[in-house]
Formats: sequence, C-alpha cells, structure tokens
Amino acid sequence: MNLFSGLGAFPLTPVGPAGIDEDAFVGLVRRLVAAGVDMVCPLGSTGGYPYLTRAERARVARLAVDAAAGIPVVIGIGALATREVLDLSADAQAAGASAVLLAPVSYQPLTEDEVFGLYEDVTAELSVPLCVYDNPRTTQFTFSVDLYARVSLLPRVRSIKIPGVPDGSDAAMHHVQRLRAAVPEHVTIGISGDPVAATGLKAGCDAWYSVLGGVLPEQAMAITRAAQSGDHNGALALSGALETVWELMRRHGSMRVASALAEELGLIGTPSLPRPLRELDADARVELGDWARAAGLVG
Amino acid sequence: MNLFSGLGAFPLTPVGPAGIDEDAFVGLVRRLVAAGVDMVCPLGSTGGYPYLTRAERARVARLAVDAAAGIPVVIGIGALATREVLDLSADAQAAGASAVLLAPVSYQPLTEDEVFGLYEDVTAELSVPLCVYDNPRTTQFTFSVDLYARVSLLPRVRSIKIPGVPDGSDAAMHHVQRLRAAVPEHVTIGISGDPVAATGLKAGCDAWYSVLGGVLPEQAMAITRAAQSGDHNGALALSGALETVWELMRRHGSMRVASALAEELGLIGTPSLPRPLRELDADARVELGDWARAAGLVG
Repeated sequence: MNLFSGLGAFPLTPVGPAGIDEDAFVGLVRRLVAAGVDMVCPLGSTGGYPYLTRAERARVARLAVDAAAGIPVVIGIGALATREVLDLSADAQAAGASAVLLAPVSYQPLTEDEVFGLYEDVTAELSVPLCVYDNPRTTQFTFSVDLYARVSLLPRVRSIKIPGVPDGSDAAMHHVQRLRAAVPEHVTIGISGDPVAATGLKAGCDAWYSVLGGVLPEQAMAITRAAQSGDHNGALALSGALETVWELMRRHGSMRVASALAEELGLIGTPSLPRPLRELDADARVELGDWARAAGLVG
Repeated sequence: MNLFSGLGAFPLTPVGPAGIDEDAFVGLVRRLVAAGVDMVCPLGSTGGYPYLTRAERARVARLAVDAAAGIPVVIGIGALATREVLDLSADAQAAGASAVLLAPVSYQPLTEDEVFGLYEDVTAELSVPLCVYDNPRTTQFTFSVDLYARVSLLPRVRSIKIPGVPDGSDAAMHHVQRLRAAVPEHVTIGISGDPVAATGLKAGCDAWYSVLGGVLPEQAMAITRAAQSGDHNGALALSGALETVWELMRRHGSMRVASALAEELGLIGTPSLPRPLRELDADARVELGDWARAAGLVG
C-alpha cells in the first residue's frame, strides 16, 4: 500500500524569541501519534520550513522521527536553490524520513521545464518516496495537468498534494478524475486546503494533507475515517461544524489560524511564528477563542 | 545629495557547476566602474541573492566593495526570515556597503503590518541608508501607497525601488506624482522594469535600478544621462532601440535575458544561473544573439 494515503497531519514548528521550542514540538507530534494519524508531516508550510536554517530543519526531522513511534514521517525538503534541496533531502533521509515532500519554492517565477528539472535532479539522488507539493499560494507556481503527468513518471514520485478542488461536488469530482487519468496508478492524489478537504475526499482523493490535523488530529481523523468508510455526508457534516475555522483560514491563512488555535489550547507558547510572520490579529483571535470555547476545546 | 540617484546597475552573480565564478563577477563590476554608473548594486534579484548561501553573499559583497573603486555599493540583504535579514545586514555593513536594498521576500503571503514590522526590525539595527525594494513579481507582495508612506518614515529609509509605472507618459507622471506626494523629500523614487525606465525617468523618478545596466552599462548610462539633462525624447529613442531586449525580458524574465546577453558578450561562462533556473530557451537565445550582432555588440 502507498504510504501517502489517509490523513497526513502537519505539525507547527513553534518558534519563540529563543528559537524552536523543541519540547512543544515533540508534544505536538505525540498528540498526532495518540490520534492515530496515517502520516506525520513536519516541516511543511504549516511547519514553517523555509524560515528555518538547515541545522534547525535537521534537528526537527530527527525529533519528529523519534517521537512518531513508527508512524510514517514525511519531511518537507523545499528550498529555493536545487543545491539546498539536495542537502535537505540528504539530511531528511539521514534523520530517518519515510518519505519527503517537495514544493517548487520560487523567487524568480519558474518555467515548467525548470520545475520538471528540479524534480528530476532531486529524485535522481533519492532513496525514499516523494510527494509533489503544489501550492501556488506560497510558490507562485501552478502545475498544469501535463506537468503533473510528466513529474509523476519520475522515479520515487508516489503522490501529488493538490492545492484544493473547485467548489461543488460535480466540479470537484471532474477535476480529480481528470488528474487521476493523467497520473499513474501508483501515484496517489491528496487534497490540501482544509475547508475543501471533505469535498476532495468525496471526489476521490486518496489522502488529506491537513493543517488542522496538526492541531486537532482527532477531529481531522473523524472526517477522514468517515470519508474512507464511504460516509461522505457524515464527513461533510463534520467539516461543516468547523466552518468558523475554515472561514478564518480563508481570510488569514491557515498557518496563522493553526498557530493561534494551538496557543489557545495551551499546546505552544506565544509568539510561535517566525518573524516577519505575526500572530493572528486581535479580532480574529477573539472569534477563534469563542469558537474553541463553544466547541468545548478549552475551558 | 541622496546616493540613491541616477543609474544603479545590478551585476549578475555567475554561478557555474563549481560555484560562483568570482573572476567573472569582479569583471562585471569593473565594467560598471568603467562606465561611470552611479551605484553598483550586487546581490539584487539579477544577482540571484536568494539562491546563495550567507557565506557566498558575504564573499560577493566584499568582492564588490573592493572592485567598485569608491562608487557607492548597494547590497541586497533580503531573505525570508527576519533573523536571516539581520545577519545579512550585519555582513553587508561589515563588507563596507554604502547602503542596503531590502525586499519583503515571501513564502506565506505577508500582511502590510508584517512588512512594516520587517522594515522596523531591520532599520532599528542599521547604520547605512536603506532602499525599500518593491517587486511583486518575485515577492508576491504589493505595497500600497499608504505602506510606502509608513515605511518611508522609518530611520535610514532613503529610497523606494518601484516595480514600474503605468503605460503612457501621463499615467506614469500621475503615478509618480502620487508617490512623490506620499513620501518625504529625503526619500528618492527609483524605477525598475527596464522596458519602462525612460518613461519612469520622464515621469519624475530620481533613479533607474537597472538590470540591463549590469551588462550594458554604457547604453543604460546614455539613457540615464539624456533623461537627467532633460532630453526625454532622446532617452525614449535610445530605449526604443532596445525594444528587442525589452520584449525578450517581458516574455522570459529580465534575469534570464541578462545572463544570456552576458554569455553572448563573453563576460561570463555558460551555464551561469543557479539551478533550478535554466538558461534562456534556444529560440530566444538566437533572437538575442542576432540582435547583439546587428547592434555591433559582438563580432
């Protein structure tokens, strides 16, 4: 079975004025283990990978593998320069990564051939499976279906993390079917964009790469398991109950909402985001706190 | 007089398979000195700053200051994390930078308050003038006029590098006048986007931050000096003669065109761009080579 299936939960990497709070990070990973997530995914966008040094990333990778207690660990290796990505890939593998996640991080806007070349260079020196990470919001690069197909044929590519699906069940299903037809069977398709995750799973996605799953893994697991058992209406209803969170994510970015929620729950200290990123603004923070209390998550 | 005036020329940092070609880089800087540019601007976007390590950037900064023979050197200090920017700022100042250039490099899209906070944190620890670098194409962040105004009031901010002006003389003039009214007199406004530079200078910009100036400094100086003497029709005519280059820059990005042109002129080796960036594609390369021969730049 392809390890890129089910729920992939993305823990935050809490960064305070004194650096990474390693104890809090390990606590977040243990929470994922306790909830039985399918993949622990440190150093994703939610984990702030591009804001950390190579040494910090190697350390976080080792902590995650140790704390994950055998659950597959998928480690983000993205960086601007291919040289850096190759170093990070080596570090992740040395730390015991089960797999790696790679986005085409951009400064100069990249061409399709440049992105293909990046994956070609990296997979040539890789011994573990790779998930292609498509996140136009952070990379400025949008994959075409043709490029998904080309990259999927490279060795060790086993999943594509897509940035969402179109609104509506039919449009979502059409989109996923189109991708499904373009990539080999051994490559799974995983949805990200938490607000549309239940829609994506109903549309045929094999995995949910989840920001919320890093903070509220039980809630994300409930949605995932309902969808996997075929109870898509149940999954959509569970997702609907989180609409306040989804709306805050749409307005403020999922990382800021996840960090504020983890702070509300007492899982990490404040501030927790690497500068120049700042905490969720005060009004949104109140709204999130009210929701968390109403949901019985905090006293 | 504000040092951020006239022509700022951005040399490439040639990166081959064995790393930075330091001799070629020094040769590029000497070429700028010989042409009498007003500022040497290493480690800008054209100089590939975000693709280089901290050690490489410190080395390039020192080489540039040594080779610049007293011409002001403006060094790019941008990076994703504020911590990194502060380190790079210290390195640039230790290398002898006359001034620094800072863009709000982004992965998570930044809010206005986050960008303001970045400039606040960096200028608090800075002893040389700073140019605010607005480049939405690479940073995903667009400054509002209000944010220009807020940032301009921070200590040591002395220039804003704007990403272009609207098409047409009147629209361009209106735009520059609006910015001029929003920022203090001691802050200059510099145009980038080489194809509209002559238009920007005519519209009242004080400086041209130029990609072409890093490779063809004499041509860029001729345009700049014509504009500075009030001969805007002359400047526009000189710019018009470069339309083939401008069109290639619009289609392929100015960095790829500048590197290909420098290779055609024998100033640097091939390949010269840090991966994942690739050379200008073959058809465009032929078009550029034909233009360079017709212009008498190569035999």
